Amino acid sequence: MYNPTKPYKDQILAEIKKTWQTPYVSIKADIYPIVKAKFSLPEIDHTDGIGTKGIYHWQKRTFRNAVLDALAMNLNDLALVRAVPYKLSNHIFVPKDDNVAILAIVRALSQECQKRKIAITGGETSVQNNMAGMDISLSVSGFIKDLKPNQFKVGDALLGIKSNGLHSNGFTKVREIFGSVYKPDFVKPTAIYLDTILALNKKFNIHGMMHITGGAFTKLKSLLRGADARINWAHKLKPQPIFKELHQRGVLDKEMYQTFNCGIGFIFSTSEREAKIISAHWPDIAIIGKVVRGNSRVIIDSMFSGCEVEF
Amino acid sequence: MYNPTKPYKDQILAEIKKTWQTPYVSIKADIYPIVKAKFSLPEIDHTDGIGTKGIYHWQKRTFRNAVLDALAMNLNDLALVRAVPYKLSNHIFVPKDDNVAILAIVRALSQECQKRKIAITGGETSVQNNMAGMDISLSVSGFIKDLKPNQFKVGDALLGIKSNGLHSNGFTKVREIFGSVYKPDFVKPTAIYLDTILALNKKFNIHGMMHITGGAFTKLKSLLRGADARINWAHKLKPQPIFKELHQRGVLDKEMYQTFNCGIGFIFSTSEREAKIISAHWPDIAIIGKVVRGNSRVIIDSMFSGCEVEF
Repeated sequence: MYNPTKPYKDQILAEIKKTWQTPYVSIKADIYPIVKAKFSLPEIDHTDGIGTKGIYHWQKRTFRNAVLDALAMNLNDLALVRAVPYKLSNHIFVPKDDNVAILAIVRALSQECQKRKIAITGGETSVQNNMAGMDISLSVSGFIKDLKPNQFKVGDALLGIKSNGLHSNGFTKVREIFGSVYKPDFVKPTAIYLDTILALNKKFNIHGMMHITGGAFTKLKSLLRGADARINWAHKLKPQPIFKELHQRGVLDKEMYQTFNCGIGFIFSTSEREAKIISAHWPDIAIIGKVVRGNSRVIIDSMFSGCEVEF
Repeated sequence: MYNPTKPYKDQILAEIKKTWQTPYVSIKADIYPIVKAKFSLPEIDHTDGIGTKGIYHWQKRTFRNAVLDALAMNLNDLALVRAVPYKLSNHIFVPKDDNVAILAIVRALSQECQKRKIAITGGETSVQNNMAGMDISLSVSGFIKDLKPNQFKVGDALLGIKSNGLHSNGFTKVREIFGSVYKPDFVKPTAIYLDTILALNKKFNIHGMMHITGGAFTKLKSLLRGADARINWAHKLKPQPIFKELHQRGVLDKEMYQTFNCGIGFIFSTSEREAKIISAHWPDIAIIGKVVRGNSRVIIDSMFSGCEVEF
């Protein structure tokens, strides 16, 4: 339901309506968009936003990157259950009623959704003059054709997919460390892994998957069920210099791996045989470790200190 | 999908899971909640939050009222299409990681959802230390059994339902007028009209309906299609003193009616005959005007000045 009260609401609605014809839903709109799904599969809903990274996006007016961040934070989590996103609601927060900014955000979101066949079915724009930055909260629904458990298996190889830098987590720490210093790293968008993951799942037998966001490498613990994950940094994926800089400026080894993706935005596991094929064919994917018998621990050979970090 | 990374995530999840058994959906959860709808009706999605009213809720820790506000802002809009809400995703924004506050919010939301048979299918808690207050963004999905146009008809009586005070709009204005002065009016929750509206729709032929929120009485324009709405204040619903006070402190007549509900939180229209029955039986509902041939105008006899206000 999309009934903005802004004076430029017709422009907002025109952008939104461009997303209403998709293979997955039929949307009939008189005053309000009525959604009829063209499938009857189980669904999953996911909600996320961009957090305090939005302070930098607002300052630098990097609105498209903000939209990509918000989409990535949702789509990469939907990837964990191989869900195909088909609709979303958005809640845009801005610190002032800046129609150029709001329309740029809505337009970028509409364009990305058109590309991905995601219908925008609801939304709200909230002007909150007490905020320092912007946020884009998305609630995305996806349907699931094929539900499988998400779990690492003993003997699996762990594969990492290169990140695009900081992504959308750890910005409270970043602001603490850098203060008023700005770096272009702070507005680079989060990589969207969903398409790669859905493609890989068609060809390979993927066992466990995790999007490396808030909590970073500690998130792997939920996939272990008794096994240990061992990760090292002797692989082809070069982390961005920003991670070494954060460590040099005082973020401790363990804190780095529980706060930042450290160059790896997504981790998944397959048999060793399949892992070698994948690693050989995808330049941004490398074998970064293995799953062994153990005690539900994540053990990382730190690229910062050379020491072991354990969660 | 609900995968909080907070240390007290088990407590959050325990509250959320209490909402997963409903007549409308079956939710299977291993790691992630997979939702299967028990109906195949058209749906509508709506997203809204509480805006800068959240500054007062955070200061006064009126978390249950904040939850009621967020629910009301969504459910009262779903009422316009007679939708039955059956699931929601939430995005809670707080200025610091206060686990007592977050759990109180999640618990209040879970309790209200259990009462209303709404499953909580996704959510996120975002700590943003640059915010002055809290916000609760909800994305609610409802199903629609019976889709009818939402439109006033010439000859209709207009009925108003009493508001509970300021509700969740106009708080940027409230803060501008009152500065650091606090009044208990600022944290009273928004009335939820959905149940009344669904009950009335079963017995009466309701033509047009509007939730009086941002844009206030100007929102009626979208239901007019050529007719005029004439509203007067010679009725039994007594507006709260806060509205007169806002006017006395300098908010102009016209601004009052385009910013605040002025004591009427929901307006709907029926035939005059049905309106008299409804007004006689419901103490909080009164006939407040009529729909006449005209020129798509909303004309109000102002209770503040006695003059006519026109939109």
